[in-house]
Formats: sequence, C-alpha cells, structure tokens
Amino acid sequence: MPSAEARQHQRSKAPQPLAYLLASVRGVGQVDLQPGAWTGAVILLGLWAAGWETGLFATLGTLISTATAYALGVDRSGIALGLQGYCGCLTGIALVSSLGHHPATYVLAVIGAIMCTLLMAALTTLLAPYGLTALTAPFCLVSGVMVLGAPSFGRIWHGDPAPVSSTTSGDTALSWDDLWHGFFTNVSQVFLVDDWYVGLIMLVGLALAGVRVVLFAVAGSAVGIFAAWALGAPAELIANGIYGYNAVLVAIAVGAVLLAGTVWNAVYALFGAAATTGLTASLTSLFKPFGGHTFTWPFILTTWVLMAAVPLLPRFRPSD
Amino acid sequence: MPSAEARQHQRSKAPQPLAYLLASVRGVGQVDLQPGAWTGAVILLGLWAAGWETGLFATLGTLISTATAYALGVDRSGIALGLQGYCGCLTGIALVSSLGHHPATYVLAVIGAIMCTLLMAALTTLLAPYGLTALTAPFCLVSGVMVLGAPSFGRIWHGDPAPVSSTTSGDTALSWDDLWHGFFTNVSQVFLVDDWYVGLIMLVGLALAGVRVVLFAVAGSAVGIFAAWALGAPAELIANGIYGYNAVLVAIAVGAVLLAGTVWNAVYALFGAAATTGLTASLTSLFKPFGGHTFTWPFILTTWVLMAAVPLLPRFRPSD
Amino acid sequence: MPSAEARQHQRSKAPQPLAYLLASVRGVGQVDLQPGAWTGAVILLGLWAAGWETGLFATLGTLISTATAYALGVDRSGIALGLQGYCGCLTGIALVSSLGHHPATYVLAVIGAIMCTLLMAALTTLLAPYGLTALTAPFCLVSGVMVLGAPSFGRIWHGDPAPVSSTTSGDTALSWDDLWHGFFTNVSQVFLVDDWYVGLIMLVGLALAGVRVVLFAVAGSAVGIFAAWALGAPAELIANGIYGYNAVLVAIAVGAVLLAGTVWNAVYALFGAAATTGLTASLTSLFKPFGGHTFTWPFILTTWVLMAAVPLLPRFRPSD
Repeated sequence: MPSAEARQHQRSKAPQPLAYLLASVRGVGQVDLQPGAWTGAVILLGLWAAGWETGLFATLGTLISTATAYALGVDRSGIALGLQGYCGCLTGIALVSSLGHHPATYVLAVIGAIMCTLLMAALTTLLAPYGLTALTAPFCLVSGVMVLGAPSFGRIWHGDPAPVSSTTSGDTALSWDDLWHGFFTNVSQVFLVDDWYVGLIMLVGLALAGVRVVLFAVAGSAVGIFAAWALGAPAELIANGIYGYNAVLVAIAVGAVLLAGTVWNAVYALFGAAATTGLTASLTSLFKPFGGHTFTWPFILTTWVLMAAVPLLPRFRPSD
Repeated sequence: MPSAEARQHQRSKAPQPLAYLLASVRGVGQVDLQPGAWTGAVILLGLWAAGWETGLFATLGTLISTATAYALGVDRSGIALGLQGYCGCLTGIALVSSLGHHPATYVLAVIGAIMCTLLMAALTTLLAPYGLTALTAPFCLVSGVMVLGAPSFGRIWHGDPAPVSSTTSGDTALSWDDLWHGFFTNVSQVFLVDDWYVGLIMLVGLALAGVRVVLFAVAGSAVGIFAAWALGAPAELIANGIYGYNAVLVAIAVGAVLLAGTVWNAVYALFGAAATTGLTASLTSLFKPFGGHTFTWPFILTTWVLMAAVPLLPRFRPSD
Repeated sequence: MPSAEARQHQRSKAPQPLAYLLASVRGVGQVDLQPGAWTGAVILLGLWAAGWETGLFATLGTLISTATAYALGVDRSGIALGLQGYCGCLTGIALVSSLGHHPATYVLAVIGAIMCTLLMAALTTLLAPYGLTALTAPFCLVSGVMVLGAPSFGRIWHGDPAPVSSTTSGDTALSWDDLWHGFFTNVSQVFLVDDWYVGLIMLVGLALAGVRVVLFAVAGSAVGIFAAWALGAPAELIANGIYGYNAVLVAIAVGAVLLAGTVWNAVYALFGAAATTGLTASLTSLFKPFGGHTFTWPFILTTWVLMAAVPLLPRFRPSD
C-alpha cells in the first residue's frame, strides 16, 4: 500500500487514456476472476456477438465504474487489474435485459455503475476482517435493488421484457442437444446471455488465461449439468444454462484462483459447484414472491462459505 | 472510557431526575442525530402537536428505553447525549400507529423500548469493527418484528389501523401543493407523521441545531422530491413524504454529522439522498409479501454503505 | 490450540472407533448445548422412541457430520465434545420430516450433514470477532436451503408430508391438557418431535447434565407457555410445543451455559425466553410467502442479540 502522500500525489494526476482502456478491458475478464487483457478482450467480443445492446451496456457499465474509481481516488493497482470494472459490466447487462432498451435505462446504467464502485468499497471494508472479497456482490446488490424498485416508477418501467424463468416444473429427460447447449450456455449465462456460441467464445478467452482456468470452467459446467440432472431439474432450464453458471464461477474461483492446486482443493471446488447448483433453486424460490432476481448470488454465497471455512479445515490450503 | 472501578461506582448511584429528563429530551432530537436539548424539546412539541397519542407514546418510549439503559449500567456519557432514547421514541410511535390505541399497545411499547436498549448494545458490538454506528436499526428491528408477529396473537391484534401505502401506481404529475406539502412532510415522516405543520415545527428545531444541519435537512428534502419526481413516483406519495424522509435523514447524517464539511462530501451526501429515495421503493416491494414495514431501513442501509466505503475512497473525509 | 505440527500429526491418524462413537453420542446432547455422554444417550433414546425414522436419520446425520469433521482435519478437541455432530443430527430429522422417507432423502441427509460441517467452520470464522458461536445456525441454513429448493427438483420432491403450521388463528383458551402437553412438547420440539413423552425422556437426559440445566429448561418451557398465552396464541399450537421450544433453548443457553449464575443473568435469560416466543410468530410470518421453515432461528437470533449486548451491559456477566 502506497503512503498517504504518494496516494495524494497519485490521485491528483489524471490516468493515461491507454491505462484507462486497459483497466476496462481487464474489468470484463474479472467477471470470471481473470485479470488478463486478452481474456477480457475475447469475452467482450463474445458480449458484442450476443447483441449490440448487450455489448454496448457491458462496455458502458465497465467504463463508467472504472472511471468512477479513478475520480474517487481508489487505489490504482486494483483499478489496473480490472477490479473496479466487472460489477459495472454485469450491471449494464442486467439493466438492459431487465428494463429494456429505453433512454431511462442508459441513465440508470450510469448511476448503477457509479454505485457499483461505492458498494465495492463498502463491501471490501466489511469483508476485510474475514479475508473475503466482494466477488460480484456489488453487482447483485445494485442490480437487485434497481430491478426490484423499477416497477414502482412510471418513468422507468415499461413492462418486463424478460420474465423470470420458473424453476419448478418441466420434463427432466436430457437430450443430447440439451447437454451440449447447457455445457456452453453455462459459461455465457455468467453474463446473463443464453447463446451457446457466446459461451464457446468465452471459453476461448478463458483458455487464454491458462490451462487450469479453462479446465475448472469446463469441469464446473459439467458438474453443474450433472448435479441438476441428478436432482431432477427441468431439461429446458439445464439447456439454457440457468442451473450451471454458478457452478462454472465457483469452480473457477475456488478451484483455479483462491485455493492452491491440490487434489483435496479440487474436490472441494467441484463439491461447491454441485452445491451451488442446488442453491440456485432455493434462492430462486426465495426471491420469487417479491420479484427478485437470482443473478450470481448462489456463486457468491457458496464461495464465501467455502472460503470462510478454510481457516478451520487444514485439508484445504489457500493459494499463495 | 472510565475505568472498571469508576463504572462500578457510577452505576451504583441512581441518576439525578433532572439528568434523566434531559437525557430523554435529547433522545427525541437524536432521531435526527442532534444532541441539542432545545432541538429535542421543539421536536417533542411537534410530536404532541401531531396528536396526543403520538406525543404520549413517543414520550413513553423515550423515557423507558433511557431508564433501561441506566438500570443495565450502560456507559452514562452516551445516555446523557440521548443515544439510548431515540429508538424507544420511534418504537412507541410505530407501535401505536400500527397496532392502534389499546391497553396491550402500552405493554408492548414498554417491552419494545426495553428491547431497543438491548439491540442498541448488541448492534454497537457488531458494528464496532467497521467504525459504524447502529443509527435507527434497533428501532427498525424491534418494531419490524413486533408488527410482523402481531397478527398471529389474539390479545394484541385488533385489525390494521394503518394499511401500508402502495408505492406502485398513481398519477405522477406534481402540483404546487404536492411540492410544498412533500417538502415539509418529508421532515415529519422521519417520525411516521404526515402533517406538514409538524414538519415545519421540526425544521425550526433543526435550525436550533445549527445552520449546517438545517441546510442539509432542507437540501435532503428537496433532493428526495426531485429524485422521486424524476423516477416517476406517484404524486400522492411524494406529497405525503413517503419518498423523502429517508433522503432528509441521509443528508443530515452524511452531510452534517458523520463527514467533514467539504464540497466532495456534500455532493456525496446528496447523491446518497437521491439513492435512498430509489431504495425506498425497492425495500417496500421487498417487504410487501409478508406485510413488513419499510420504516427507516433505506436511510440505515444507505448510510452504512456510504460510510463503510469512505476508508477506501480518499476523496471523502470523516468529521473529526 | 495445538501447534501446526501437532495438528498435522493428529489428523494423519484415524480416530479410534470408540472415540468416534462417543463424540457422536455427545453430538446429540449438544443440540441442547450439553456435552455429557449420558445426556446425549438418553436424548438419542428419546429420538428412537419418537419413531425409527426420526431415530435413524438423527443417528445418520450425527455420524456423517462428525466423520466429515475428522476427514477434513477439524480440531479434535471440539469434535470430542460433540460440537461437530449436533447440526447433522437436526438436519437428518428435518429432512426426513420435510421430504418424507424416500431413497433420495438418505442421499440428501448425507450431503446435508457434510455441509453442516462446512457451515460450522465458516460461521465460526465469521462470528469469532464478536465472541459468538454458531449455535444451530448451520442446521437452519442447510436444512432451510434444502427444503426451500426441494420442490424445484423432480427426483427429490414427492409432495409435502408436513405442511407448515399456521400461527395466525384458533381458539386461545388453554385447557389443563394443553398446558402439560405443551410443557413437555416444548422440550421435544427442539428436535422437531411433538410427542410429550419424548419431551419427558429428554428432560431426564437434561437432569443428568445437572440441576441448573434442567431447572432452566423447565423454567424456559413455563415462560414460553406463559408468554404465548399472554400474547393470545392459538391453544393448539401451544399444546404442540410450536411456541415454546425456542424458549427452552434460550433459557438453557443464556441461563445455564453462556452466562454466570447470577440473579440478573437469570432474569435476562427468562426475558429472552419470553421474547423469543414472540419472535417465533414474526419469523413464521416472514418465511411463509416462500415456504421457508422457522426451525430454531428464533433461538439463534435471540441468543446472538442477548450475548452481543453483554459486553456493553455491565449488569450481566459471561460464565468463566
């Protein structure tokens, strides 16, 4: 941590435009907990491939929340790694897909991205005593609050363009098509996108981050499908990636980023991926009465629990 | 902090009646985060002007929870500033307006005021590591739990005298009358009162606490109205102060009490006031399925987030 | 706390079968916060007397979560006291009574018991800064999540064998039969069992743990009945122990385990027992919209609040 004087000096200087753009590209990759610029660039490409609205709002959200972090004097080493951009990225996508493409949605995306930076600072303070990080919680909180409040406001609400999927009924027999669709959409649903080819592009981006990262992403997706099938989830939801995106995130976070590369740790990460699949149904039922959205809460809660348990479970070892 | 011996000695003595009354009057003002006795006295006058039931239950709640704090040996310097009375004050008002004026309501108000003192101690312990204070959370928890459980109990429940306002529909065009009504009821709704002249009396009390306090109260009320209008909230709810009382509290707390008097801090406080206005709709939707009440939760959550973010955002500076 | 080397050595050895069984029997007693093996054995007898399914799932859950703790290298002194078994015990009972006796329920009970050990570690980390313990929260979280998610999954859900009791209506006049039934079922409902003779057997087990423990259990049950009657709860629910089991737990935990044996502390514990009775109705109303279960949340929340308040209330003193 730089001295108070150095930080004072640092924030008196505007950032280089190139540094700002690089931090933003990395911010897109940080949704999957990857700081690599190439990974971020390929994933951003995937988002634009999903549709110009998705790409535009993802880009806008990432740029605004990164810029807010510069303006408020947040520590620059974290900004450079993209840690101030990823929640804005997801918030932009969540707002345009929940509220539709209207002028008011642009305003809300900007305000939401600013709030993501504030929430990121607040949660970092609150989680610090436990050695936990905020993960995507700022996104879930900001988007959750905005989507929950939106129907109360005449200038924002134009009807629901994306009704919440039901998780409670439907045929449970998986076809071959369901299987490979689900395998890829599990990766794209991390960004609220349900196109299999977007998931494929994103897997390429994750491969650029290293073998271990892409292996855990793939294993997480497979475990998510298996767990959902074993529990008897509707095939349609499995094929759309609804049940597997949290498993992908837990596998990457716990298996490839936060813990060291041991066999016990890998088993722990994949157990977490299976558990988060079940938790997805619980949280969706929990949020249904008030129209809330599940977003990536199952990933966040599962990862917090698994990581908070580690200090008392000597079998598992944090990465250095 | 006094030594253990001094505290032992201190709590063996009963408080002076005058000190007890002064601490209670200050407790009324602490609802608006003001320790001044004159401010508390004028606000208490406003509560009695709102109706004898409101005045009586506010007085009863403040007296009981302050007395509980003495009896349990709470640190006396905090009691003297009124910090043990304000949650009991609000709980008394909330219970009589939610449950009606019945003998059982008096009993519940006494129990609720005792619980406020316990919750205040518990939350102070839990929030201490983060440098946050309990604000009005003890009131929201105690009153929320009591109002939520009340319909299950035959000896307490006599039907709902104050159905929860809907925040989801209605005309959004603001008349001049809506505007100035809302401006004052935003101040009185902090105490669950929707009479504009009570808000006016309370503003006089806040003016006695200093120019900065009353300026932020006024600015918070204006920002709350503007934000609600910009979002497209129903005019009737704006006129009744439903959308603005949290903005008043956030503006006073963040702008005039917790942060230093800089331009960045003032912008931050008013941004928070606008944000809490939106959050009010979200929380009301969240609480609706189980008949919960919003109370001052938007103020509490917004202020906790803003203050927890400050240590990582060097632009903002706590007050000394 | 043993040194890192000693712990490394310790977990490389498999536990003695006898030590494992003893730790599991103690785990059953730890549901009532008692480490005594005889207490655990008598309570386990009561569970088998309630029905072989209840006894079997309680035994299975306790054995699995204790074994998981050994396998993951949890500190052995805590395991030996039964601290790793009690949440698995309750989770087993909750799953068989909520999901019915099916092959899938066995699988879920095993997974749930494993998760209880993880949650126990995670909550212990999170609560450590406040000097609080996890109590039965791992059970409530694991069982709550599983029961909430279950209806979404075709291979798990076979209809609800135990619909949630309504707490909102019914005759409030208590007969003599209601009274003594309630007195004993308050003790058995801690384990989700509503047979009065099971409660009687469990009281015998608690008597083996000492006079103070059984006195507080009895006083808690009486206070729970009185508070529920005074509030006007339906007589049928009082007779079934729905309103009193949390009072029994609070009285034992605060009165006989966590605080020293003073008069002020005893009053505090019994005040908490009365308060948790009211909280039971609030939480049941809160959980109703999404089909959640109250389990022992009222006990947990009440005890956390009372214990977190103690450091600032010099009248009360923790046990040594």
